[in-house]
Amino acid sequence: MRIEQLDTPAAIIDLDLMEANISRFQAYLDTHGIANRPHIKTHKIPAIAHQQLAAGAVGITCQKLGEAEVMVEAGIRDIFLPYNLLGEAKLERLASLARRATLSLTADSELVVQGLARAAARAGVPLTVLVEFDGGMGRCGVQTPEAAAELARVIVRSDSLRFGGLMTYPSNERTDAFVRTVRALLARDGLAIACVSGGGTQCMWQAHAHPDVNEHRAGMYIFGDRYTLKHGAILEQDCSFKVLTTIVSRPTAERGILDGGSKTFSSDLLGLEGHGLIVEYPEARFYGMSEEHGHVDFSACAHKPALGERVTVIPNHCCPVANLFNQLVGVRSGTVEVVWPVAARGALQ
Amino acid sequence: MRIEQLDTPAAIIDLDLMEANISRFQAYLDTHGIANRPHIKTHKIPAIAHQQLAAGAVGITCQKLGEAEVMVEAGIRDIFLPYNLLGEAKLERLASLARRATLSLTADSELVVQGLARAAARAGVPLTVLVEFDGGMGRCGVQTPEAAAELARVIVRSDSLRFGGLMTYPSNERTDAFVRTVRALLARDGLAIACVSGGGTQCMWQAHAHPDVNEHRAGMYIFGDRYTLKHGAILEQDCSFKVLTTIVSRPTAERGILDGGSKTFSSDLLGLEGHGLIVEYPEARFYGMSEEHGHVDFSACAHKPALGERVTVIPNHCCPVANLFNQLVGVRSGTVEVVWPVAARGALQ
Repeated sequence: MRIEQLDTPAAIIDLDLMEANISRFQAYLDTHGIANRPHIKTHKIPAIAHQQLAAGAVGITCQKLGEAEVMVEAGIRDIFLPYNLLGEAKLERLASLARRATLSLTADSELVVQGLARAAARAGVPLTVLVEFDGGMGRCGVQTPEAAAELARVIVRSDSLRFGGLMTYPSNERTDAFVRTVRALLARDGLAIACVSGGGTQCMWQAHAHPDVNEHRAGMYIFGDRYTLKHGAILEQDCSFKVLTTIVSRPTAERGILDGGSKTFSSDLLGLEGHGLIVEYPEARFYGMSEEHGHVDFSACAHKPALGERVTVIPNHCCPVANLFNQLVGVRSGTVEVVWPVAARGALQ
Repeated sequence: MRIEQLDTPAAIIDLDLMEANISRFQAYLDTHGIANRPHIKTHKIPAIAHQQLAAGAVGITCQKLGEAEVMVEAGIRDIFLPYNLLGEAKLERLASLARRATLSLTADSELVVQGLARAAARAGVPLTVLVEFDGGMGRCGVQTPEAAAELARVIVRSDSLRFGGLMTYPSNERTDAFVRTVRALLARDGLAIACVSGGGTQCMWQAHAHPDVNEHRAGMYIFGDRYTLKHGAILEQDCSFKVLTTIVSRPTAERGILDGGSKTFSSDLLGLEGHGLIVEYPEARFYGMSEEHGHVDFSACAHKPALGERVTVIPNHCCPVANLFNQLVGVRSGTVEVVWPVAARGALQ
């Protein structure tokens, strides 16, 4: 089937571009001796995760236990889950999964460490736990190097856990100094930091500027979107992920309505103006959305699209878009090669 | 299973409240002689659609052909699809569906009418088509009463179509005058307007204020959310749809992190400040999200939640939230009664 025959809206991956993106970033990290642990929350598709591993990734990153369950089921055996898992139901699932794959996790509190220790004991296999520190994003993470060191000591004291190192997001100008301070604190106890896991796609080409970070987690690097374009991490010509839409209404001379809205593109703005870049009409302003309609102002375009015409959209943020589709369509030279169910979408937390 | 035993995040429907919401609005529309055609895009669950029909709805509204396919498969036989369908693939599916259920649709252009006429001819059953007019929202819809009348005449001239009337969204202060003008224009041709379909949950209790509108489409009235609370359409005590979350991090004295972010709550703001109302901590400010984390400032709360505590969130907009979950959990008096797959989520457009 040709791409022109796909019904819209359709989420399309240009396989040549995606494979080039996978190779390019892997080569960059290899050059700098940084381990690549791609974040699969972007695509949630086991086949793509396997491609990332085949290219040289040391393992994958999942953001939800349910994603990890899907990936283990698909044969992936080294998974980092940088999320505070709490609650007996999740710890039970974690224990089951730990028997089937090598899992590492994070914690930023003793309560989380205690739960992970119970899960590891139940599983009968050790779990590796990294301490998450807040790199300035204001999300999870311990606030000071002293707190990081203290939590590392708690992990070390647990019989069923292994202290794996430190985790933060995103890698930034505060990261290295923080790591060095923790390293110095732990050195007094004779404790080493095996892994420092940083991350981010927007900063992916600066991974080598963090000598104290030896692993990088990026997700969007395989696809690209308006956000990564804005940050210069990916060029428009390398964007492998796009959404095909149809102009279903031309109610006025200036306005066009797409057959995709907030349930197609998500409402993520990420600081951007508008909801997507219309490739064929770059001057168009994708200014509004309802759930299944995109509202576009074509007044700045010399030539305007006809009713029924197809247009291609680079969304603001590829991750939630992939998560809204049942399937992503892989194309090569305009021909459909594969249709991948988004296997881990909506998976349990 | 008790609600306390559900793992988080979980999307919960209080069945008593939902049933009361269904009854209350049906009774209101019945009192005023307005047909109720609820929009199932809010829940996408056949069992709930059947409840709405059992309460007295004349049929349902779907926003996507794929939703209609799921609902027909579940035995629903009267479906309004107020969306401009274009493209041979969709028209082929429409023709198949038209043989299995009574379908009505909308159009705002001759091109759409022509496609619907072909589909109806192919199906061998007539399709009812309403003319969509722009009530001021600036989405789809013809712009003037003259254009509406002209398109109605195009529909009437088609052998395979029936002219069904007019559709707009939302019902507002412009609606009645527009309808009356079209009515007068069509009366000269001896054409009557059988149905005028308006809609909206925020304006649902004003449906009777539009004497020229004889059908109402509302979606969120069964659930309620922060948006409908703000508009006074639903009271907080009647909100039947909530998301259970767990506080997975308390990185500072003021900040708490929930195990749900933009892939749980969507990024819809709808003009609201923040991303949800935390029922147990109404003074808390749900100020930020990443994909799987909610960032909450509890500084205004005299008592602050403990790490691991569960909190209940009323989201900004219930529709995209239901669309992000694999299943909604129906509870009654705190006990799980039913778990419904969100059957039409991610369905083809």
